[in-house]
Order: sequence, then structure tokens, then C-alpha cells
Amino acid sequence: MKRSYFRPNVDKMAPYAPGEQPGPGEKVIKLNTNENPYPPSSMVLEAVRRSAEESLRLYPDPESRRLREAASGAYGFPADWIMAGNGSDELLCMLVRAFVPEGGLVAYPVPTYSLYRTLVQAQGAKARELRWGRDWSLPKGLARRGTRLVFLARPNSPSGTCVPKEEVRALARSLDGVLCIDEAYAEFSDDDCLDLVRESENVIVLRTLSKSFSLAGARVGFAFARPRVLEGLRKVKDSYNLSRMAQAAGAAALQDLAWMRENVERVRRTRARLTERLRRLGLAVPDSQSNFVFARAGERAKELCAELRSRGILVRYFDEPGARDSIRISVGTDAEVDALLAALGELLGCACGSEAGSGGRPAR
Amino acid sequence: MKRSYFRPNVDKMAPYAPGEQPGPGEKVIKLNTNENPYPPSSMVLEAVRRSAEESLRLYPDPESRRLREAASGAYGFPADWIMAGNGSDELLCMLVRAFVPEGGLVAYPVPTYSLYRTLVQAQGAKARELRWGRDWSLPKGLARRGTRLVFLARPNSPSGTCVPKEEVRALARSLDGVLCIDEAYAEFSDDDCLDLVRESENVIVLRTLSKSFSLAGARVGFAFARPRVLEGLRKVKDSYNLSRMAQAAGAAALQDLAWMRENVERVRRTRARLTERLRRLGLAVPDSQSNFVFARAGERAKELCAELRSRGILVRYFDEPGARDSIRISVGTDAEVDALLAALGELLGCACGSEAGSGGRPAR
Repeated sequence: MKRSYFRPNVDKMAPYAPGEQPGPGEKVIKLNTNENPYPPSSMVLEAVRRSAEESLRLYPDPESRRLREAASGAYGFPADWIMAGNGSDELLCMLVRAFVPEGGLVAYPVPTYSLYRTLVQAQGAKARELRWGRDWSLPKGLARRGTRLVFLARPNSPSGTCVPKEEVRALARSLDGVLCIDEAYAEFSDDDCLDLVRESENVIVLRTLSKSFSLAGARVGFAFARPRVLEGLRKVKDSYNLSRMAQAAGAAALQDLAWMRENVERVRRTRARLTERLRRLGLAVPDSQSNFVFARAGERAKELCAELRSRGILVRYFDEPGARDSIRISVGTDAEVDALLAALGELLGCACGSEAGSGGRPAR
Repeated sequence: MKRSYFRPNVDKMAPYAPGEQPGPGEKVIKLNTNENPYPPSSMVLEAVRRSAEESLRLYPDPESRRLREAASGAYGFPADWIMAGNGSDELLCMLVRAFVPEGGLVAYPVPTYSLYRTLVQAQGAKARELRWGRDWSLPKGLARRGTRLVFLARPNSPSGTCVPKEEVRALARSLDGVLCIDEAYAEFSDDDCLDLVRESENVIVLRTLSKSFSLAGARVGFAFARPRVLEGLRKVKDSYNLSRMAQAAGAAALQDLAWMRENVERVRRTRARLTERLRRLGLAVPDSQSNFVFARAGERAKELCAELRSRGILVRYFDEPGARDSIRISVGTDAEVDALLAALGELLGCACGSEAGSGGRPAR
């Protein structure tokens, strides 16, 4: 291009970098994007199959009514306190567009979900990134006057940690802008902040079916907020944002909570074992409330990720302050986690990480 | 809310009003949102069924590679000249976000697709709406200096008309901003502007599978532009914007072009008949290049729409300058169109509109 047609903020920014998605047929152990290792409910698969019919020629319900009714039953909120999104990523984008003018201030602790930064830059807004305190405690200064929006991932990624709920409540009250509590991983943690939506009109809680419900491929997320807040948000919503297939899949998933809970329990059990073994390997691991753990490997972290990749094991490395010494490992099946621990044990020069360690592939 | 957390432009604006979506089970003749009356290809239904499997737990391909390869084959562009969207509506939104700063200028002829206005308002940008000339000719002044983005729906809705391609080419050359040619209905018209993408770096053409491919429910659209333009646009793209089901459905649809073309031919034949009968009823109807017609009914237009609704026939009325005297009628099946013509014939007090007119329901 002779010249740029783009806004300067768009020209300057880097795109969001999603985790590696291996090509079809490539056999890897995928522990890099926090997907659920267990399949979605058979009710979901049946619902998607049933959606494959003539009515696909018609637009979907722009309000996702049946899906929101199902969410209402599952989460215990009236349907008009719930908005459905094409994944919670779409809802995050809508929040920035609705609340933050060009040059407006958005604050969040870092390191965290890096999409927040991308969305702020795309909006031409200003990001105020505050480093987490010691042991991933809430940094001071998030509620500075004039802040339009605060993002708080709870549990946070990549740390897997949760800020105490009392502190979240206090943050909401001290803010003159909106607090978005991104609860993508909440089902894996001991508590959640959904009820803060009832207490404070400036609180919006996001949920997704991608993680606990094993539906990352279907793109279904929810925003919980007061009806008047959602009424405003609806103005920036793509009218037909969820396909007929996605609405059907989501509604079915929310009708089989037992399946989700069982898988969450399995992940939590594996998480406990993974955490313990990683610590035995000498890596510091904060207690995780999520479906991944964040293991401090020191200066070798980046190299370790590459070595694991060459052995067909994908984990996630974040090349940014506060994360460069660590690797984020999604909690897979027990077998996947055993393979990871065996490989890590070898790479770190000890076989104590896993019972399967001695039987694993020999070190290169 | 005691106070508003929203941006002032969002507070002030009205949401986009999609056409009425009847509830499940409600029996109506739906000629209001330009859906295809014929079902999608059986290959699409089969592909959606096959997507209902364990891999829904994994994120979809953020680049929609297989879908874009299929689009490459169908449209004759390299895959890196193509971006996939969650319907072309998502792509329209991305264009505004990428090219238009707060207060920036967006121009388009009106009346047209009303989402353009909604998107401009949500961005806090300025809309320059220019009334179509006589017989839906291109208004002067769209290329005024400093205009960041021009929307041109071709065919236009609600008129169904196409600006001559030479004029579109000249518009692209005279613009210092971007020209988005929204070709949602192009398959129903005699020509299209896809090749202008090769000629001018500031041209972006949008297509959708919603209309000609009978897939409004699946949400699949495409942007065609130079690779460097799409590289910039990717920065504002939701990374996982198309579900696994939508990517599968879209790829299958593009592999059965014969099915699409056959349905397009049927719609065009019915359109010719509908146009002729409406004219016989005394309504002025511009030649339509789309899957709907725009019939001038004079002062009774709004009332006629309501009367048709009470008979279970949905058509679309637009309460805005240049459209208030007309009704937009989607081209349905022959039987649907006969029912519409019979009802209209009665309401207009003559039975000459349809062969089925005399056998229709008696006038109230």
C-alpha cells in the first residue's frame, strides 16, 4: 500500500496471538490453550446433529432466547440479566466498544489474558497495566478516578490464582467505571463472583462454555449484568451473533450440568497431582483455581517449552514481564499429564517427577 | 442506573432493529428478511452432523483455513485475499473499527442497509447519508475529501437495484478512503464487483452465505481484499470468530455451487413473475437484481404491511425518508408469492394480481 487506510492505533498494534492450533491429523499432546480434555456431553452432540436441517436457511434468534433460558436455569439469574456472545471474547470486545471512548482509560493487573491489551489498542484507548503484587495479590491503583473499565480475570490466567472475593467487592465499590470480572475458569475454582452482579450495578461477570463445558469449538459465552446495562450493550451487539448450531449446542450443554461437574472434578483431581509433581521437580507452582497451572522454571522456561514442543507436547510460554520465567500447562487427562511430567523430568535431569518417568522416552 | 457508564454516542443511539423473527411453531409466510426459500445443500447438513463430535472441545481454527480454501476455489481468489467472518455483519463492524476513528467520516447512499448507521453511531463516528438520486442512481459527494469509509450495497437494499459497475470503479478511484462494496445479494444480480478488488487497493468486497447459499442460520461471510489490507484487519478480528460447525457448514456449501445456482435461478424466475404481477396491481417496482423487490404502495404502505401481518404474511417496512411509501418483499417460493399476491390483490381492492387471487381468502 502506498499509504495506510487504517487508524494509527491499528497500524501500530500487534494482533492477538492465539495459542498454536496443530493442523488436522498432527498428533500432539495439547496442553497450551486450556481446553477441556474430556468431550462435551452427548446431549450437545445430539443437539448439533438435530440443528442440521432445513431451518439453517433462516436467521437465528437474535436474542438467543432458548439458550438464555437454559442459562437462566443453570446459573440462577433471570434471562434478562443474561446476554449470549460468540464466545466471551466477543463480549469482552463489546464492553470496550460500549464503555471506553478513544483515549479512555482501561486498567487491569498483568500478566493476564493478553486479549485485553489487544482490544484496548484496537479501540484507540489507553491501557493502564499494573503488575500483580506479591503472590498474585491485587495491585493498588486499579480504581483511579476516570478509569472507564477494569478487567479482572478470576481465576487469572496465566497464574491460575483468584483474588479474594472481598477484595473484588471492595474494588467494585471504589470504581467509578465498570468492573468486568472475567470468570472463564470459574467452575474450576472454589468460589465465584456471580452474586456481585446483584450487589453492584457496575459489575459485569463473563462466563464461557469453552472450558468447563468442553465447548471451545462452539463459541458460546455469557455476560451477566443488570437488565439496563445489557440494554445498552445490546446496541453494540452484532444482531445475529450466535448461529443456530451454537445456540442449540449451548442450550443442550446447560441442560447436562452433571456431565460438566464430573469433568471439572476429574480436572481438579489431576490438577492436584500435577501441581504436587511439578513441585517435587523443584518448580514453584501457585495453587491453581483453574484448569491449568503456572510453573516457575526460571531462565530455562522458554527453552523448556521449545524442547517439549519438539517432543510433541504443547504448553504455553508468555514472553512478557512477570511471566518469562514460567510455563503455563493446561490440565489434560492423567495420561497426558504423565507424559508431560516424564518429559519434564528428563529435561530437568531428574526422574522424580512422575511415576511414569523412568518408563518414558529416553532423553535425547 | 444513577448515572450512565456508557459512552455518550452509545447512550444516544438506537439499537439495530432486525426483521421480525416469528417464534418456533408460529406458522407464517416469511418474506421480511430476504432468506432463501430453499434449503441448504444436503452436503451442508451432512457436514454439520459430522462436526458434532468430540473435537468440539477444541478451539476452532482461528484462520478458518479449510473454509477459506473452499472460498478460494469458489470465488477464484487466493486464500490470502479472503477473510472469513461470523456473517458479513461482523466484517462490516470490523471495517468501521479498523478504518474510522471517533468523529471520522463514513458516507453511504440512503435508504440502504440500516446496520451501517448503527455501526457508525456505535463507533462514535459521523455518518454522511446522501439520498439516492432519481431511479436509485449514485448520489454525488460520496468521495468528499477526508471520508474514511464508503459503504455501497450492491445490489442495494431495500431497492434491489445495482449502480452501474463503471460508476463503482470511478468511485473507488476518486476516494481517498476505503470503499466497501457489500455484495450480500450479488449472486442474484447480472454482474458483480469482485474484480475491482484486484484493481484498487482501497476496495473491499463483502459476500455472505446467508442469502444465495441458504445459510443465514450458520453465520458465514467473507471479505475480499489485498493481503496487506486483510493483515491490518486481522488485528481487530475476534481470534476464534467462526465455530467449528460454521466452518464446516461453509466449506461444504462452497463445494456444492450447483445447488446454490439452481436455487438462485428459481428465485430469479419467481422474482420476474412477482415483479410483473405487482406492476399489474398498479405498484411501481424497480427492476430488482436481488432476492427481494421494493414495491411502491404510496401512503398505504405501512398499513398494508400491518394488514399482511394480520394475515400471517411478513414483509418489511422501513420508516425512513425514501422508503416510507414502499414495502420490501423477499422472493419466496412460488406458492408463498401467490399467497402474498392474492392477499395484496384483495387489500388493494382488485383481483388482477394473481391467478390465485380469486381463490384466496375473502376480503375482510
